[in-house]
Amino acid sequence: MTKDPEDNTVNKVEDWWSTQIIDMKPGEIRYRGYAIEELIGNVGFAEMIWLLTRAELPTRGQAELLEIALVSAVDHGPQAPGIAIARMAATCGVGLNNALASGINALGDVHGGAGEQAVDFYLKIRSETNDEENLETTVERVLLAFFANGEKYIPGFGHRFHPIDPRAPRLLELTDLAANAGHVSGEYAAIGRAIEAGLERLKGRHIPMNIDGATAVIYAELGFPPPLARGLFCLSRAVGMLAHAWEQTQQGGRNKGPVPRDMTWTYTGHPPRKLDD
Amino acid sequence: MTKDPEDNTVNKVEDWWSTQIIDMKPGEIRYRGYAIEELIGNVGFAEMIWLLTRAELPTRGQAELLEIALVSAVDHGPQAPGIAIARMAATCGVGLNNALASGINALGDVHGGAGEQAVDFYLKIRSETNDEENLETTVERVLLAFFANGEKYIPGFGHRFHPIDPRAPRLLELTDLAANAGHVSGEYAAIGRAIEAGLERLKGRHIPMNIDGATAVIYAELGFPPPLARGLFCLSRAVGMLAHAWEQTQQGGRNKGPVPRDMTWTYTGHPPRKLDD
Amino acid sequence: MTKDPEDNTVNKVEDWWSTQIIDMKPGEIRYRGYAIEELIGNVGFAEMIWLLTRAELPTRGQAELLEIALVSAVDHGPQAPGIAIARMAATCGVGLNNALASGINALGDVHGGAGEQAVDFYLKIRSETNDEENLETTVERVLLAFFANGEKYIPGFGHRFHPIDPRAPRLLELTDLAANAGHVSGEYAAIGRAIEAGLERLKGRHIPMNIDGATAVIYAELGFPPPLARGLFCLSRAVGMLAHAWEQTQQGGRNKGPVPRDMTWTYTGHPPRKLDD
Amino acid sequence: MTKDPEDNTVNKVEDWWSTQIIDMKPGEIRYRGYAIEELIGNVGFAEMIWLLTRAELPTRGQAELLEIALVSAVDHGPQAPGIAIARMAATCGVGLNNALASGINALGDVHGGAGEQAVDFYLKIRSETNDEENLETTVERVLLAFFANGEKYIPGFGHRFHPIDPRAPRLLELTDLAANAGHVSGEYAAIGRAIEAGLERLKGRHIPMNIDGATAVIYAELGFPPPLARGLFCLSRAVGMLAHAWEQTQQGGRNKGPVPRDMTWTYTGHPPRKLDD
Repeated sequence: MTKDPEDNTVNKVEDWWSTQIIDMKPGEIRYRGYAIEELIGNVGFAEMIWLLTRAELPTRGQAELLEIALVSAVDHGPQAPGIAIARMAATCGVGLNNALASGINALGDVHGGAGEQAVDFYLKIRSETNDEENLETTVERVLLAFFANGEKYIPGFGHRFHPIDPRAPRLLELTDLAANAGHVSGEYAAIGRAIEAGLERLKGRHIPMNIDGATAVIYAELGFPPPLARGLFCLSRAVGMLAHAWEQTQQGGRNKGPVPRDMTWTYTGHPPRKLDD
Repeated sequence: MTKDPEDNTVNKVEDWWSTQIIDMKPGEIRYRGYAIEELIGNVGFAEMIWLLTRAELPTRGQAELLEIALVSAVDHGPQAPGIAIARMAATCGVGLNNALASGINALGDVHGGAGEQAVDFYLKIRSETNDEENLETTVERVLLAFFANGEKYIPGFGHRFHPIDPRAPRLLELTDLAANAGHVSGEYAAIGRAIEAGLERLKGRHIPMNIDGATAVIYAELGFPPPLARGLFCLSRAVGMLAHAWEQTQQGGRNKGPVPRDMTWTYTGHPPRKLDD
Repeated sequence: MTKDPEDNTVNKVEDWWSTQIIDMKPGEIRYRGYAIEELIGNVGFAEMIWLLTRAELPTRGQAELLEIALVSAVDHGPQAPGIAIARMAATCGVGLNNALASGINALGDVHGGAGEQAVDFYLKIRSETNDEENLETTVERVLLAFFANGEKYIPGFGHRFHPIDPRAPRLLELTDLAANAGHVSGEYAAIGRAIEAGLERLKGRHIPMNIDGATAVIYAELGFPPPLARGLFCLSRAVGMLAHAWEQTQQGGRNKGPVPRDMTWTYTGHPPRKLDD
Repeated sequence: MTKDPEDNTVNKVEDWWSTQIIDMKPGEIRYRGYAIEELIGNVGFAEMIWLLTRAELPTRGQAELLEIALVSAVDHGPQAPGIAIARMAATCGVGLNNALASGINALGDVHGGAGEQAVDFYLKIRSETNDEENLETTVERVLLAFFANGEKYIPGFGHRFHPIDPRAPRLLELTDLAANAGHVSGEYAAIGRAIEAGLERLKGRHIPMNIDGATAVIYAELGFPPPLARGLFCLSRAVGMLAHAWEQTQQGGRNKGPVPRDMTWTYTGHPPRKLDD
């Protein structure tokens, strides 16, 4: 709409939805200043994710490392509540968009937040680093303060199912390669490893980095603020939810409950009674 | 869990959640048979989306064309309800996962379904194609039957805002390149163009293919069933929702309504009355 | 905001959100014309639901029957996917509002739509009723046409778990009382019973009305259009989801999967392979 | 399913979903021990909400007060993001259940959490009350500590739109009546008023209790834990979302954006550029 500089209401309404992400006129769409038709075919999906969330295009090395993180977290099977929810919803007569929404919705502080919390924790250690002490000492100091504060788990370390999460060492290896090639600094990989070593000293047992800790290393290396670590995890896990919701649709089933139909649940409540009891 | 072949309950429960997508043992994760640590760093995000939804890895040419479609639909600005919903939700004190969920949830038959419907329509035309008549005639026959059935819009054609959707010709151009290189057959690009031409003959005006029609050409060329066209659109648009929800978070604001706070809405209902009136 | 009759933009923006439901000025809120402070304490929750969705207050008898239907459908246990989803989401670190949303979201055509479809079916039979034939004949005619059309299930009849759904006869009994008292006509109760009888004649076995069929009788008696039957079911079932999500929160647990942690799932996909296979 | 005491897997799976809320056998449904057919027609909707969330039936006086709170918060118009989201989603080709879900999802810490936070705050003051000082002094002490902690807003007090929220005095009046009748203690109404008075002394201006503060008084009087205050608000506001989503459906419209179609948004980002710039 052509703006009339005198029409304050138009300005006020249009300003209410101001954005730096996209500009649009009839026949023209620009993301961050680039024409959409130029982006299509010239930038990959990971680069587009970066451009929209970070305002500038990544370098090739940055885009590759982001893509590695996105690839690593797409699925963890039907025991993961988000995947199970997407599969169940897909049998209830809603669209794949709704099945995805119900699942992604559950990627909260506990299910999808560990990566965000781990980036936050790495940034805290980074900000506590100083010339007076080596990284090992800093990490131990922060860990002790963390435990003294009543926290039990360091986000991004340990896994209930995998003794060693097969994704973590591979992600660290690729981060090292990217650091050696100068795409990232490598300091968050060092911090992550220092946490793993510090935990082992303090706890007396090996609590290895998991997928959340390892993708958080990458997101921190790439400069993503913590909340976007969760956002990126949502984009990644949405892929698994889509695949599972679609597979479930093809398997059929109506109103799929969590366990086979002839199993119910254990009732532990009040025995039968009447209203006038 | 090691299965006891005698334990039917375990089998029954575990079969309830059977999947061909992912296998997992402690320390081991395989998608479609491939070890996760081998996939990470060797396949891109688009290839992973294909692998999970289609069971096999795509060729390089297929993956590139899929990535082109994913890149093209990430954002259409704050007037698009899904984007607006994600921005509004982000000011209500929920996580980015929830903001994404509320937005993706709205990508229903009208907002996110045109691509799915267009793939469906192309497949119908493809199935009606025969040796007796040329494509032009087939398309016209199907279009007439469609309109005779009371339908007004051909999914994927026309746009309320863009006279020419700048994404569509670019996507068709890249599809042609992929067809020339032998990555896809090109027959759905031909069908899409035949619909555009047929519509112009029947309606007497140019109703150009839009983003939904053009991505549907690509998804049909790549063999995706119609519901996955919507699913892939959700993955793509989720990127824009994330960027907008995050930008909104940084802009601040609490409980963002659709228009500036000093504007209310027009009330057209019953005039003031009392209960005992 | 005081409207300037000359300011078309303000009018246009405010008209964009026009509603007959609520009017508001600073210090004043009116629903359908009634001041909120007069409604509070003088109308019940069911009456308020009616007022907002139907524009006028119900009679006392109508409100009681609506309340009966709302009470009847609040919960069907953790095997119902919506309840299970709400419980699982509640362990993922999201708010109760998000747990409710993921669950309600799944009340789609299959899980929450039977009531809507049943109202629709009753209205169809009602519209086919004529002086030429008795209800029994009309119902049989519509049923046969329905089955001839490839449909297998009559919405609102039969239950996979309950031989007799204990809610249905009770709801019909109370509908009869309301009809006898003149609050409703009773014609949809008659239609529902005629369907049950017709099904038995056509199928050779008793397929009793279930909760969806019985609440649909009430909603049709009360004049609710079919989509609101689903909407009202959502309001009702939301109560059970809230109770279950809250109980789950109190039970604790993190990232609750559908089955105990040491059970996985049956993998039926491609055997292990390598990328260069 | 009849349990075999020897079959540990069955027990383990069924225990995974254990609940005190509902028991079910074929043909039998009991909530908290009561047969569903006895509850239907004998308890109201508010009583059912109480029974499911609190394990026992309320007294008549408790149920009335709960119903009053539920009635009071159903709608705050299309400027409230949850209502706007539900209306927008309803135009996108999704069911009313999905429109409700997207809206309820947004009732987060900021949009739906004030009631929960207010109950929490009242409970804190209640726990700080002692024989040594009068309520006025206790409240002032807690308020000062709260502000000293960097908090700016007391949840439940002040309103951006209403100088006096017309719902609050009415809700307090009805709470007083319930206290006088012995249904509740009235001590949270006293605490709420003491906060209002304390705020005025400390801030030098009247910051009146709003709807969230007033419903929180009622929920605290009735013994609901803070998270359920948000849950109950979700049940209440869901009514307004349903009415608005349905009205929007009847008004028609496709892909309703936040403002009229010919308005776009203000773009404040990077000026046009090319990829090779």
